[in-house]
Amino acid sequence: MGQTTIKDVARRAGVSFQTVSLVLNHPQKVARTTRETIETAMRDLDFVPSLAARSLRKKPSRSIACVFPLAPEPAADAFRAHAEAEHGHVLQTFGTVTDEQGYTLVHRCRRGDDPDGLSRIASLVSEARVDGLAVFAEGRDDPLIGLLQAKRCPFVVFGLDVPGTHFAARAERDAVHGAVRHLIAAGSRSICLLAGDGRCPPAVTERFRGYRDALAEAGLPLRDDLVVPCDGTSAGGYRAARALLERPEIGAGSRPDAVVAASDRAAFGVLKALHEGGVRVPAEIRVVGFGNLTQAAYAVPSLTSVDVPTLDMVRFAFATLVELIEGTRAPDDLAQKLFPTRLVVRESSGAPPP
Amino acid sequence: MGQTTIKDVARRAGVSFQTVSLVLNHPQKVARTTRETIETAMRDLDFVPSLAARSLRKKPSRSIACVFPLAPEPAADAFRAHAEAEHGHVLQTFGTVTDEQGYTLVHRCRRGDDPDGLSRIASLVSEARVDGLAVFAEGRDDPLIGLLQAKRCPFVVFGLDVPGTHFAARAERDAVHGAVRHLIAAGSRSICLLAGDGRCPPAVTERFRGYRDALAEAGLPLRDDLVVPCDGTSAGGYRAARALLERPEIGAGSRPDAVVAASDRAAFGVLKALHEGGVRVPAEIRVVGFGNLTQAAYAVPSLTSVDVPTLDMVRFAFATLVELIEGTRAPDDLAQKLFPTRLVVRESSGAPPP
Repeated sequence: MGQTTIKDVARRAGVSFQTVSLVLNHPQKVARTTRETIETAMRDLDFVPSLAARSLRKKPSRSIACVFPLAPEPAADAFRAHAEAEHGHVLQTFGTVTDEQGYTLVHRCRRGDDPDGLSRIASLVSEARVDGLAVFAEGRDDPLIGLLQAKRCPFVVFGLDVPGTHFAARAERDAVHGAVRHLIAAGSRSICLLAGDGRCPPAVTERFRGYRDALAEAGLPLRDDLVVPCDGTSAGGYRAARALLERPEIGAGSRPDAVVAASDRAAFGVLKALHEGGVRVPAEIRVVGFGNLTQAAYAVPSLTSVDVPTLDMVRFAFATLVELIEGTRAPDDLAQKLFPTRLVVRESSGAPPP
Repeated sequence: MGQTTIKDVARRAGVSFQTVSLVLNHPQKVARTTRETIETAMRDLDFVPSLAARSLRKKPSRSIACVFPLAPEPAADAFRAHAEAEHGHVLQTFGTVTDEQGYTLVHRCRRGDDPDGLSRIASLVSEARVDGLAVFAEGRDDPLIGLLQAKRCPFVVFGLDVPGTHFAARAERDAVHGAVRHLIAAGSRSICLLAGDGRCPPAVTERFRGYRDALAEAGLPLRDDLVVPCDGTSAGGYRAARALLERPEIGAGSRPDAVVAASDRAAFGVLKALHEGGVRVPAEIRVVGFGNLTQAAYAVPSLTSVDVPTLDMVRFAFATLVELIEGTRAPDDLAQKLFPTRLVVRESSGAPPP
């Protein structure tokens, strides 16, 4: 990285090296478009200004970045999807934990696999703007992970167990396994799994494993028609539940007697659709959410949900990052933890009202 | 700021100036506690390392910070309160808008008026880690505002109309005025205002003005017992509604026939308490929320709520910051906007079910 010179940058940007030097030392004297061209060239080449920055570069920034995926959708929808995802809560938790420890949190979005975007994220570390990264991976083969490994950036994967990386993830399989066992014990026999829409396929696979195993243990059949794709939004849960209600009451492809939703938000949509359809919850259909938002306790009926120890996960990820940054943990001494979840039983799956 | 030398830092930290120099140039060679002592002294003195940093200092970081208040509560409660506040959504919106514009977002919390914390926030700009700040002020006399003005940091206040600053705020008075007019038109005569618990007194005052004016215009009395302190959490809304239900049905201090909540989350708590109390919504009590979370449409019954144009507010605040940073807006050419809200009428105040 350090071997790129300002002449390389000048060549790439199509300007003289004196202009590059001017951008480094007196950027306000350079026209904005020229400056931006040169800054882009610097980023493309992973250029770190040598004299000035080199000495600062080793000074810890005491900052870490959270890198979130943004759906490759039209802006307004992407905003909405980002807001609907549980990122807000995780982000705030990172914000408060980093703050508590005297660190600053940087928020970065990324859109899909855009290579430019990926290299800009890596350059946060090479430019010493942050000391390390918490990455919300989109899959186990996320190209950002390979890039960060190649560049030896300190990073921790959040929310997904990616082999060969440090990670803080949820025990997705056990979470759904426990929820389905609970529903079976309560008397449910045809349990629908709202299975995620493929944004994070490994988590969906893990949840499906928990679902399948719990059914098998109880000797219940695995019915393809009860594994229904659904995103984590309220609108998605609402639509999925409306479709379920159009099914016949009994026989092949019949409606389920329980639903495990992909998220609490989706579960709120399910509760709404069932309410509108005149279906009694839990008497006719039991409902379980995922995430245990504060609001789950105030839904009508209150929502049984999988509680995720977000604060513990964030603390673990942050502590690991600090160890990597300070060199007290070797990069190949992997810190990996699948955090157990806890099912909070409320009215929607049969707990008596308070 | 630039006149502090490393000798000043050395004196304050009680070390030789060579040690300070070493921290600047080869921090890894300095014992951690010594380094931290020196870094604290640098921050205390607003020291910016002269040779190395000076040239970088004028290079825009292309970063802005969002500065959020954290309640001065025990950590776990503060986390919860922070998560319950609507900050998550605003933060994500800032994150996506800054990202869209090639900027990086830095997240900072602050606890009350801790002067150390305030000066660390200002040092984000003086150390060129960010180019400007979006500040969630706690009141019109927030000491952070004075500090940022004194240090000439580019900043915009978000969510509150603070005279003499650039701000993006909501028309709180008009929002509640519109909600109360709507309730009166629907037939409500004794309307309860859940009035906020004093965290942001100016907004509470503005909302109260809207409430009082709408009652006066309709010739309805202003009843002290119907202005009830309540925070914005679901638990707060639930408790407040339970207390209302203990009132007599008629006469002095009787229960209201409508509730305007401080937030959607509080309104969900109100709906839950009314449901448990066997009170029909909207037939016996109408309910209006504030914020129009996606979930409001999926509440049972669906929640009438004040929609806030968060994305527009964030875009305005960000565009103003960029103008200040790039020098295309003079600091005293104040960009101030009160954004109008919009009442979305749903079942909880009488709209027919879909």
